[in-house]
Amino acid sequence: MIRAKVYVYLKKDILDPQGKAVKHIIGNMGFHRIQDVRVGKYTVLTFDDSVSEEEARQQTNEICRKLLANPVIEEYHFELETLPLGAPAGDG
Amino acid sequence: MIRAKVYVYLKKDILDPQGKAVKHIIGNMGFHRIQDVRVGKYTVLTFDDSVSEEEARQQTNEICRKLLANPVIEEYHFELETLPLGAPAGDG
Repeated sequence: MIRAKVYVYLKKDILDPQGKAVKHIIGNMGFHRIQDVRVGKYTVLTFDDSVSEEEARQQTNEICRKLLANPVIEEYHFELETLPLGAPAGDG
Repeated sequence: MIRAKVYVYLKKDILDPQGKAVKHIIGNMGFHRIQDVRVGKYTVLTFDDSVSEEEARQQTNEICRKLLANPVIEEYHFELETLPLGAPAGDG
């Protein structure tokens, strides 16, 4: 069973208002030595046991390009991990 | 310069409606061999050069517990990476 951990985030030149808001709140909490905050999405796809690593890589790439990431403003990367057969699907 | 990559996600026993919606859409796109999708948050905190690794670890933990994660329903983990001095703050 293969799990893909997908990270989607704004390109570095794109303004991130959510990150700026979090940075402001963190400053109000007393943390003044954080110079930048960026907020993105973390998505975990769990494939069933019939999917090979190469298929999982291709499908994850396609799902990222077509659904999870907006290629105009966002970038993504992902990692694949192989789980033992019968591992629970919903684990972090 | 230290960067913390923070992952926040729902505990595995908590229903993830956003993940279910993404799974449904992915199925409509023709990918039927994905058995589970979970959606979380990915936040990157970049500390300034005065912050040690131990301080970054403590501050990131505190920021996660107090702001980024809701401990009732969410879990988090993070990784620290050390960047060369003067690296751009906004990079992925």
